[in-house]
Amino acid sequence: MTTPAAASSPQEQPMNGGTSAPSRLSLNQATIKYADLTEALAVTSRASITSIGTWREPVQNVGLPEAVKMIEGSGLRVSSHCRGGFFTTEEGPIRRASMEDNKVALDEAAALGAPALVLVAGGLPEGSRDLVGARERVRDAIGELAPYAKSAGVTLAIEPLHPMYVSDRAVISTLGQALDIAEQFDIESVGVVVDSFHVWWDPTLFDQIARAGARIASYQVCDWVTPLASDVLLSRGMMGDGHIDFGPLTTAVANAGYVGDIEVEIFNQAVWDTPYDEVARRVVETFAQYVAE
Amino acid sequence: MTTPAAASSPQEQPMNGGTSAPSRLSLNQATIKYADLTEALAVTSRASITSIGTWREPVQNVGLPEAVKMIEGSGLRVSSHCRGGFFTTEEGPIRRASMEDNKVALDEAAALGAPALVLVAGGLPEGSRDLVGARERVRDAIGELAPYAKSAGVTLAIEPLHPMYVSDRAVISTLGQALDIAEQFDIESVGVVVDSFHVWWDPTLFDQIARAGARIASYQVCDWVTPLASDVLLSRGMMGDGHIDFGPLTTAVANAGYVGDIEVEIFNQAVWDTPYDEVARRVVETFAQYVAE
Repeated sequence: MTTPAAASSPQEQPMNGGTSAPSRLSLNQATIKYADLTEALAVTSRASITSIGTWREPVQNVGLPEAVKMIEGSGLRVSSHCRGGFFTTEEGPIRRASMEDNKVALDEAAALGAPALVLVAGGLPEGSRDLVGARERVRDAIGELAPYAKSAGVTLAIEPLHPMYVSDRAVISTLGQALDIAEQFDIESVGVVVDSFHVWWDPTLFDQIARAGARIASYQVCDWVTPLASDVLLSRGMMGDGHIDFGPLTTAVANAGYVGDIEVEIFNQAVWDTPYDEVARRVVETFAQYVAE
Repeated sequence: MTTPAAASSPQEQPMNGGTSAPSRLSLNQATIKYADLTEALAVTSRASITSIGTWREPVQNVGLPEAVKMIEGSGLRVSSHCRGGFFTTEEGPIRRASMEDNKVALDEAAALGAPALVLVAGGLPEGSRDLVGARERVRDAIGELAPYAKSAGVTLAIEPLHPMYVSDRAVISTLGQALDIAEQFDIESVGVVVDSFHVWWDPTLFDQIARAGARIASYQVCDWVTPLASDVLLSRGMMGDGHIDFGPLTTAVANAGYVGDIEVEIFNQAVWDTPYDEVARRVVETFAQYVAE
């Protein structure tokens, strides 16, 4: 949209050997988790990446008005805002507070210019084994938020998480299941996330991506690295370090009509312990090598 | 089928407080992994469990003819034999050796009186990212073995493994996918395993169980315990220790027409470190409490 501010001063020249980053690449902030918003914007710009995926905590740490100014000043696009959701709680004050907090998250996304708010469904409530009921409450919560999302101009992007997270993080486990919910609502209000790590194993994946079409609100990538990290939340790896064949996936998402930014989102202790600029450089390189069309 | 030999001598009285084990309960040998076949049969009988799921290694350790005699002497049924498979290797000597080994496994199952040989598909070959091709080779291998299985009178039971094992253990990840393969062959030759740990998360599970009908060749149970063990292969927990609601699952499998034994199969270091009779006692108790109809 705008020229990156990073290119305007010599000390902010691209660090990646002069290679221009693929134009639709976005750096999800979680990939450089310990960077604050100021650092994250600078790192992104120095790598000549033109888009960033923001997270709520670093935005809130500077305050939304200041974050909006900083984003505008950076010239970066915001590809998505992470994250809302956690919709499986039974009706009561906690659920009400969660719904209000999701509206705040939608307001943040709108102010930042993010087209989508990424939703993580939430796991089974403490002590519950009622997966069917938990899944119904996710659908109900999305139905409740959809009008607010529409008026905010932000798409609720349902992210199916890998089935290994079903009990403790997300009862929405497949793209098909996410679409079964999304299709009950306006396409501008409710879409889905295609995240390579979460869906690559699915034997019906390519059919579901075709089915998703314009419902795809975000395409996120990282690799599936084995053995899984002892904390399986941190098993996401740099592209090329694992088992995912990104080419057919990128093609399928493109054929479905998705033209938005592609976020690299990596939760990985070794990546987090690497200097930010080095991470961004590797993201640019591996994205170009494995993911870009 | 026959009265357990365990009841015939005083020192082999049931150890579970006199409670009779549910009649269709089978103890999979892997639940008491460190017991040899002699011990496993004795532990099973002492717990008044009337069926056992055998594994190839402990059977081979005593030799098949001796194992057959021991099983006959025990009076126990053999609910399944574990395991064959590992079908994703490209054509060549290794694949040929694997096919021959699977025929040996079918012979073992037939000799032991096991109605089914449980198959684990195998993961991606070293260095490969071709999930589609690996899955095709699994189907081809099953097609090659099906006539041999039919003549042996043993069902090849395709076990979909949890999607977290897709790259390193089993490219067959859902019951629907297993059925897509099984349905290409005679129902006596090729069936599927419903294992609670591997499939409980699946939003289409109950539809797929109904679809499976008489294709269900084995029903195995254990619980999904979080946090997952650092070696995710050892995350299987005792029933009641985790998040799975077994009641609706058992009912669905029964409604599909399955009347065979139900195996408790637990890979869990803490369970393996517990005295065998104590494990068997807990299996009987928790099975009755959580799993039995």
